[in-house]
Amino acid sequence: MYRTHTCGELRASHAGQTITLSGWVHRRRDHGGVAFFDLRDRTGLVQVTINPDLPKESLDLVTNVRMEWVLQIEGVVQLRPDGMKNPKMETGEIEIIAREVKILNPAKTLPFLVSTDTDLADENTRLKYRYLDLRRERMTRNMVLRHKVIKFMRDYLDEQGFIEVETPIMFKATPEGARDYLVPSRVYPGQFYALPQSPQQLKQLLMVAGMDKYFQIARCFRDEDLRGDRQPEFTQLDLEMSFVHRDDVLALVEGLFTKMLPAVTPHKKLLSSPWPKFSYREVLEKYGSDKPDLRFGMELIELNDVFAKSEFRVFQSTLEAGGVIKCIVAPKSADMSRKEVDALTEVAKTFGAKGMPTLAITAEGVKGSASKFVTPEEVEALKSKTGAGVGDLIICRNR
Amino acid sequence: MYRTHTCGELRASHAGQTITLSGWVHRRRDHGGVAFFDLRDRTGLVQVTINPDLPKESLDLVTNVRMEWVLQIEGVVQLRPDGMKNPKMETGEIEIIAREVKILNPAKTLPFLVSTDTDLADENTRLKYRYLDLRRERMTRNMVLRHKVIKFMRDYLDEQGFIEVETPIMFKATPEGARDYLVPSRVYPGQFYALPQSPQQLKQLLMVAGMDKYFQIARCFRDEDLRGDRQPEFTQLDLEMSFVHRDDVLALVEGLFTKMLPAVTPHKKLLSSPWPKFSYREVLEKYGSDKPDLRFGMELIELNDVFAKSEFRVFQSTLEAGGVIKCIVAPKSADMSRKEVDALTEVAKTFGAKGMPTLAITAEGVKGSASKFVTPEEVEALKSKTGAGVGDLIICRNR
Repeated sequence: MYRTHTCGELRASHAGQTITLSGWVHRRRDHGGVAFFDLRDRTGLVQVTINPDLPKESLDLVTNVRMEWVLQIEGVVQLRPDGMKNPKMETGEIEIIAREVKILNPAKTLPFLVSTDTDLADENTRLKYRYLDLRRERMTRNMVLRHKVIKFMRDYLDEQGFIEVETPIMFKATPEGARDYLVPSRVYPGQFYALPQSPQQLKQLLMVAGMDKYFQIARCFRDEDLRGDRQPEFTQLDLEMSFVHRDDVLALVEGLFTKMLPAVTPHKKLLSSPWPKFSYREVLEKYGSDKPDLRFGMELIELNDVFAKSEFRVFQSTLEAGGVIKCIVAPKSADMSRKEVDALTEVAKTFGAKGMPTLAITAEGVKGSASKFVTPEEVEALKSKTGAGVGDLIICRNR
Repeated sequence: MYRTHTCGELRASHAGQTITLSGWVHRRRDHGGVAFFDLRDRTGLVQVTINPDLPKESLDLVTNVRMEWVLQIEGVVQLRPDGMKNPKMETGEIEIIAREVKILNPAKTLPFLVSTDTDLADENTRLKYRYLDLRRERMTRNMVLRHKVIKFMRDYLDEQGFIEVETPIMFKATPEGARDYLVPSRVYPGQFYALPQSPQQLKQLLMVAGMDKYFQIARCFRDEDLRGDRQPEFTQLDLEMSFVHRDDVLALVEGLFTKMLPAVTPHKKLLSSPWPKFSYREVLEKYGSDKPDLRFGMELIELNDVFAKSEFRVFQSTLEAGGVIKCIVAPKSADMSRKEVDALTEVAKTFGAKGMPTLAITAEGVKGSASKFVTPEEVEALKSKTGAGVGDLIICRNR
């Protein structure tokens, strides 16, 4: 048997037990003739102590062991002395006193360290050696989290009476949307399958077929140019229900995510329910985005009436063109430096802004890039409409 | 709200409740001015009674309703009188007395009936109208069963500490196996992605990455000519484990299927464990197949020694060529007609047999196609070796 336990599961309650572990050498330390390994598997790390009283052939074997060698260790779980416990390690109350060490596989020197996130290799190197990069704790955690999230979705939807139906990957072209990936047919030269951009057509057929509540963790393919959030294939939770209204679908998805978050995150974050609901018009007016991050607050406030008679050419031309002037109030940001504001302006420009007029409300009066174009009456109207006070920064958006 | 309940869930305990259902008209019957609908959704059927005391506009509406129209029914659940209960229907103890009928969608006349499996349409028609064929009870049950089987696999493997990892569909060519399907790259003209024949390469990388216990309900693609058991894409349970021996993998899969069968089949069939285990050599010797159906029994018995001095040319030439003569004993089949044996011979020929010599042990002596070539001594040796007695049929295989 390669192991009786996994590295990450060992606790004080195992003390005294003789166990066998298999895993990777995460770190090696040597202190006064004693070698210490942190042995790693997917479940976590545990400290293994190689005392100098082991048989010579075992000690000789251990001499050469370096990071990422794969070892099998037989040993006894022992409580660490009080001062030696490591509260940062889940297995930090104990250590393994090795009785026998077997080298299952040595390792070459790695192109980068997997035991630390500092000095992270560049992304190309990490992707080239993805099988090593995935050994890093954070990457492993991501893979496990993804499994838990999707497992939770499946369990939840199954409980709600949904069935998962797998639909074909080699299918017909999608009548709309992005470009399809095509697979030439060998049997019918000149003809093609298309990879689905989503199971849309098939799930509608399943509804016609009476499947009632369908879902699928579905693979989708779109032949688009690569971008930060675009890749040739992606996975979506696809669902469809018969005999429901819009609010039934919203309630289902709200329930799913509200219950999922505390179940899958280690710190049991809660998501309060009911969620706020916005119409498309409302959310665009308040946040300028159909997927706002509500944690920021700082809703958009319309200022067309405040600046109806503005002398500021930028505002004038916006209003003449039938446009809208809005602002957000950044609390306690009036003392933002010119450099900081300029940096934010550059970010705004990447989202299509031409500029970013600002008004800082300070004890000494109004400052900021738009300050010399606003009248005292406009400032008063602005304060009254936005609730901004001394110390706040008003950031305008005109378009 | 489109419905308060599903059709299939209603029982005697719902009697007296006012409910709303939505579903398809599975059958319609008219008796003495009363119309009866079996209303269907994915969960099952329930009988709806349309009494002639409904308002005239409701009755007019109902007049035209035919099979597969989609209705919304508001009504009261009522126990059926004792003689009228239908023990074959899960909802057979009750019926719905309609108060209001709404037509959600009429239907054209269907190309085939979905309410019965008799007079089944030919397969091409069923595939053309797959969204109708899937409404048939058996097809719906298949879809639900498939969901349950795969859900069970996922739950079981999750409990065993496996994580499911999705691997890419557009990938590199498979170095061995069948022909790959290819997806031309738009960005790199002349270059291709291949669809994976299995996630083999990727799951090995996941093992190197320390994922420990991986599984995936994985889509696989092989560009092979279509056959009964071959199609362009199929789904497999793909799994891999670190630090295990062969028997660990066998035990895992045995546990999965042994627990799954009673959980997903309606009649709670049990699969006894431990399973018999055979070496490849043993199973081929005993059954002539690496996937025998053990329910048949009738193991192959070698007869080379029995026929070592046979005068039968067929057996002689088999032995001279270093071949093997085997037989199975078909119990109580000595009275099989010549026609039946000929039909079986044709089946054997489709599996590569040249013929199928038989010996029927009867009270009047040995009969069958090989009977005139065997000596009384050979018959005695045969009986003793195979245990065949009067009434049994010995079917030989030589190759």
